[in-house]
This record gives sequence, C-alpha cells and structure tokens, in this order.
Amino acid sequence: MADSVQVRPALKVNGERLWSSIMSLARIGATPGGGVNRQALTEADARGRSQFIEWCEAVGCTIRVDAIGNLIARLPGRDSHLPAVMMGSHLDTQPTGGKFDGAYGVMAGLEVLRTLQDACLRPARAIELVAWTNEEGVRFAPSMMGSSVYAGLMRLEDALSVRDVDGVTVRRAMADIGVHPQGEVSGSPAAYFEAHIEQGPVLEAEGKTIGVVTAAQGQCWFRLVFHGRAAHAGSTPMSMRADALAAAAMAVTSLNSIGRQYPPGCATSGRMIVSPNSPNVIPENIVMTAEMRHPDDAVRLTMEEQFRAAVQAAAWGHGVRVEIEKVLEQPAAPFDAACVEQIRQSAERRGYACMDIVSGAAHDAVAMSRIVPAGMIFVPCAAGISHNELESAEPGDLEAGCQVLCDCVLAASAQ
Amino acid sequence: MADSVQVRPALKVNGERLWSSIMSLARIGATPGGGVNRQALTEADARGRSQFIEWCEAVGCTIRVDAIGNLIARLPGRDSHLPAVMMGSHLDTQPTGGKFDGAYGVMAGLEVLRTLQDACLRPARAIELVAWTNEEGVRFAPSMMGSSVYAGLMRLEDALSVRDVDGVTVRRAMADIGVHPQGEVSGSPAAYFEAHIEQGPVLEAEGKTIGVVTAAQGQCWFRLVFHGRAAHAGSTPMSMRADALAAAAMAVTSLNSIGRQYPPGCATSGRMIVSPNSPNVIPENIVMTAEMRHPDDAVRLTMEEQFRAAVQAAAWGHGVRVEIEKVLEQPAAPFDAACVEQIRQSAERRGYACMDIVSGAAHDAVAMSRIVPAGMIFVPCAAGISHNELESAEPGDLEAGCQVLCDCVLAASAQ
Repeated sequence: MADSVQVRPALKVNGERLWSSIMSLARIGATPGGGVNRQALTEADARGRSQFIEWCEAVGCTIRVDAIGNLIARLPGRDSHLPAVMMGSHLDTQPTGGKFDGAYGVMAGLEVLRTLQDACLRPARAIELVAWTNEEGVRFAPSMMGSSVYAGLMRLEDALSVRDVDGVTVRRAMADIGVHPQGEVSGSPAAYFEAHIEQGPVLEAEGKTIGVVTAAQGQCWFRLVFHGRAAHAGSTPMSMRADALAAAAMAVTSLNSIGRQYPPGCATSGRMIVSPNSPNVIPENIVMTAEMRHPDDAVRLTMEEQFRAAVQAAAWGHGVRVEIEKVLEQPAAPFDAACVEQIRQSAERRGYACMDIVSGAAHDAVAMSRIVPAGMIFVPCAAGISHNELESAEPGDLEAGCQVLCDCVLAASAQ
Repeated sequence: MADSVQVRPALKVNGERLWSSIMSLARIGATPGGGVNRQALTEADARGRSQFIEWCEAVGCTIRVDAIGNLIARLPGRDSHLPAVMMGSHLDTQPTGGKFDGAYGVMAGLEVLRTLQDACLRPARAIELVAWTNEEGVRFAPSMMGSSVYAGLMRLEDALSVRDVDGVTVRRAMADIGVHPQGEVSGSPAAYFEAHIEQGPVLEAEGKTIGVVTAAQGQCWFRLVFHGRAAHAGSTPMSMRADALAAAAMAVTSLNSIGRQYPPGCATSGRMIVSPNSPNVIPENIVMTAEMRHPDDAVRLTMEEQFRAAVQAAAWGHGVRVEIEKVLEQPAAPFDAACVEQIRQSAERRGYACMDIVSGAAHDAVAMSRIVPAGMIFVPCAAGISHNELESAEPGDLEAGCQVLCDCVLAASAQ
C-alpha cells in the first residue's frame, strides 16, 4: 500500500447526500418494522444491485460482475498500470436486518466516488467500489461468501453449489434473479478499505466517532452434548443423579468467567436446548453452543484449553457424559499496520474523537485482509444494536466515517 | 387405627395371580412401546374402570362411584358399626406411562380381597378398595384430584370445573365416558394403606424389597424469568453484557449445591427455555423452573431462602433482572407412626429386606394422610425408571409388597 500522504483538506464528502442514498436504498426490501429484508440473491437483492449499478454508472464507473456475483464498479485512474484501490461492503441483509449493516459501507464508497466527481479529481490509481455477494450467509451459508471466494479462501465451485433449505443452489439463485457473471473472481488491489457500523456498544459508550479497527478477533465455535439420565426429580437422591443441566450450567459459568479473564476476548453460550424439559424430570440431554473470541490466537487457544478442562470437570462432577465438537475455527486477522495508521491519522486530522478497537464480528474486510493490505473504519450504532430492524446510526457519525474512508482511499490512490 | 396384632402367617397372597391381573389391566390402553396410555377420564380409563368393577364385584364387593368419580369397592365386615379400613391407588397413567405406577396399588388391593375370599375370612371391619380419579393430573390439573377432594383439600365444585386444553370440564369428561356419580365425596376410614412402586432408584441400589415410607417430602416449585439484553456475541465486551443465560446457569449451579447440602432433600431445575437461542447472540431471556423438596419443612424453607439469595446474586452479578414466582407449595406429610410401624413389622416378620424411605413424589396416600392414619409401602422398580413405557418391576417384589399390604389391612381390620 502507498505511504501515508497529506490529503487536501478541502475534499469534503456530502453527509446529506450520503444519508439520502442510505435511506433511498433502505426502501428496497423495507420491512413494516422499519428495517430491511434484502437477503442475498433474492428479488429484493436484485433491485438493490440494479440501483447500485445505476448510481455507479452515473459517476462514470464501469461495472464488472464476477463469477460469484460480486459487483465491482471501477473509476479509472490516471495510470492504468497501477493496481486499483478498493473499497466496499455488502448490500444483503438479515431477514429482519437494519438500514446500515453493509449498506453503509457501500453507500459511503459511492459518496467517495461522487465527491471525486464533484471535484473533477482523477487519482493516479483506479478506484474500485465493490458490493460483495452474500455477506450475511442467511439463505446460503457460509457468510462472507463473495469476499471469501475473491480472497481464495473458498473455492468458486463450492460456493456456487451451496444449496438453500429448498435445495436451490447459489448458481441457480443467481440466474433466477438475472445476475450474469462476466468474468472470473480475481483481482489484486493495492489496498482495501471498508466502513461499517460497529455492531457493538463500545464507541457509543466511550463517546468516540471513529473506531480504528486494528484486528478482527479469531474465533472458535463448539457444539456440546451432555448425556445424563432422566429421572423423577422428587424420588431420585442427589447422589444418584446424572443431571445434564447441572453439568451444562457449570460449563456455562466457567465459559463466562474464562471470557472475563482474557479481555478483550469474549466467550458466549447462545443456544441451549434441554430435554425432556419438564419441571419435575431431571434433564437427560443438553445440546448447547459455546464460542470464544480473542484477537490473539494463542490466548484463544488457552481459553479453549481451559474451557475443555472445565467441561470435562463439570461432566465428571455430575456423572454425565459429554461430547464436544469444534464446528468452526477462524484465526485472528490483524489489519495492515499502514492502513490502520492511515485511518487513525485521517480521523485525528479531521478532529474526530477516535479509538483503536477490535472487531468482534467477521466482515468482508477480514477475508480481504488475507490477501491485500486492508483496513476497517467503524462508526457507532445506537446501543450497539444490529441484525435488528431497530438498527440506528447518527448522520454525523456516518459522514465522519465516510470522510475518513475518502481520505484513506485518496491517500492510497494518489500515487 | 387398630393396634398392631399378630397376623396368621398362613394367609398368603398369590403372586402369580397378582402379576396376571397387572398384565391384564396393562392391555387396556397398551402402547406400542410396551407401556400404557390410560389418561384419566378417557375412553381407555373407562374400560379400566369397568374391568375394576367387574373384578371387585366378583369377590363380593359393592361399588360406589362418588361425585368426583372415585370408585370405592366395599367388602362388608362382621361389625357394620366400625369404620372401614381402606386401601387403594389409581388406574390412570401418564401419556407414555408404564404398567405399574398406580395400577400396582389397585391390583395389590384386589389381590388382598381375593386372598380373603379364598380363605373365607371376614374381618371385623369392612375393607374398602379405592381407585382414585385422576392421580396423574395430565389432562386435568392438578394431580391427586380424586383423593384431594375426598380429603377435603380441594373443593368438589372446583375439581369438576377444571378444563382441559380444549375447554372440556372434568364434569363433562366424566359424563362423556359414562361415569355416573352415586353419592357425595366423603368417608372416614379407620386407616388407609397404599402400595406403590418407588419411582426412584434407592431400594434397588440398597438391595431392599420393601420401603417403609415414613413421610412424603414437602415441596415448592418456582418459575424464574431472567431478563437480559440480546447483543452480538462477538462485538459486545464481557463488561457490557447482560447475559441472561450466564445468570441462569449460576442459579442452576447454586440450586444443585443447595440440594446436595441438605440430604435427603433434593433440588432440580428441569425446564429451561432460552431466547433468542442463537449461537452468536447473547441470550436475552431465560424462563426456567426450580423445585426443592425436603421431609422437614423448616429445612426446605432454609433451602428456599438460600436459593432466592443465590438467584439475586446471580442476576446482580450479570446485570440481569430476574422475576421469581412460587407456583406450588406443599408441606411435608409424615405418615402415621402406627401405620409405619405396622408396615415395618409386617415386612420384618415375613423376612423381607426393608428400609425406611421418604417419598419424593406425591401420592394419593399423601392427601389421605391429612385426614386419617395412613401408610405407604414401596417396592423397587428397575433403575428407578417411572413415568416411562420402560417402567419395570419384579414379580417377587410386587408379591412382597402385596403381602405386606395384606398383613397391614388384616391387622387394622381385625378389631
């Protein structure tokens, strides 16, 4: 990536125009509850894609649709031999998603392109704005599909063959909504920047406008099954029980304290299913999930070891058998030091209150960070609420994030 | 109740005949899984009632159906001025119940009557064999309905007005299956004896044939709701969470250790419902049950106090709000000392390995113990499994329990 350079302070994004395009996009797939349902490769997604193409063409971009349906709008640079600088995010949402998750990063990129057009500025490098296919992974798992294929983390053929619950493949769904690929999934941009709402409560609580994302936490997910023995809760002495819930509860308690022990890591059990789930029957089986995240993979492995030991102790203490299966493991993704520094400097120069932050959630930028220098800009969202129709963000914060994105992209594309 | 008297050792129940009548009754409402579905006031229950009446009439009993549908078969005694001695249990089952829970006690009583008939023996007092209506409380709550009305613990009108999920009342269901009451619900027997499978694992584990039931544990049931805050499991720092499951898990762990702290009491959380129950969302709400039992009510109240304090501490520690509601409270029921002694002496005289035991479950005998001297005889069931199609008991053990019942009823009815 290019070295940090001084950016003309005059180049100013238009916050009202940005807000207006976010609100306009949010009408596509709008839900009665004030949110958005624009799941990947649905008819609503198709309309969102058309709108994106129309807007990007209006600022002089050419559009390429790659083999997994990623939309890449390109504004040519002065020197066609230099690799482009890329920015973007995703247009797809959760079924009861909000107006900002993903959409903000794409609309912020669009606002950067419009600002360049207004200023009649043509940087040395081409600038690409990408709308990644299927970041949310709702209808078609896994999440971050388009960016993972682009980054070589998932095979194209595997992604195209993924089926939804009705057996429809990604390939079929793309054809059904008129997404016609024009080329391979590939590219080697000089750098990648993504603006996104935080989806957590930290920036708001700390009173900061810009989160300088230094890394994405590594994570591992587990599925546990505790096998106890159902028995009458009144006539089975405590000493003769195999109470699966008592064992699982100890495991949850240990998991929580392990999470607290290693900040900024976290540890969560989000799902638990008890059977037979009757008030006066000692629980026989518990199926539960556990996940641990930490920006340092070595620490995360320590957390995992402690958890596994605690689970075995809990099961042993209650005469219960336990199975533990790791169902997902993603290493931590530190963002590129120069990109991070570029974001921090831009925020400080503009006078935005900023802080370093670790992303707990995964993003397209995490996939991109595996192959190119990448950076992420967070802005606050109200009460940290996301994946929810109530998702909300302040126009001023959105403008600030967009301004930092603009400064970084301009700096990176200047030479 | 009459003082303990020497029983003619010659009067011997017929174990094979007892087994045969249990197996015969089990065909009424038999399930493919080898169990019985003969829920109260269903068509299967009606057939079970008819069979009971037929068998009792065959040994010279008159039958009375009281206003809540209890079937009372009466074998007259030599002195019609003396109160009768009563024995019994229930014919209704759980939806996937077994062959022995309830049915055993009624068939054991029938075997006592047949043994008297074989011996041409007519005691001083009348002997009554009762099949209580709706002990299980599956379709119509609460459980022990017939015996509770008989004992004055529940108003007849309240019981008759209870509705099932389809809105059908007990009164209507009785009429539908042809149960026609012939009189009020009342009676003042001299004593009440009930034989029952243990429904727990203690007798089998201790190698005993007869459990001399000294008391039924008191119990209290609670419904708890933990109100946390749903949030992204990756982007919400541990210190900013309100994790309802983490709080509930601590409460379950405390409940379990309180149970272990006060033997022979027990404490159980049998049901827990987590929402939204998604692997990477911090749980927002937990609904869970908790119950505590102990034969000493003062100790049970201490357990309850400790649990309430632990629940508040768990909620406070996790920034979660909790509601706790007591939904049931039943005081402990010590059985009549003379009845208990009668059972113990009978078991010892017959050479059966026996032990004192506390009933963790409630039974019709618990209701009866509130108004008359009452005693209960437990026999082992395989692995303590009950309320289950796999419920199983040994013919020899069932015969032994029936023999003790016979001895006790004869002793109590001799003068």
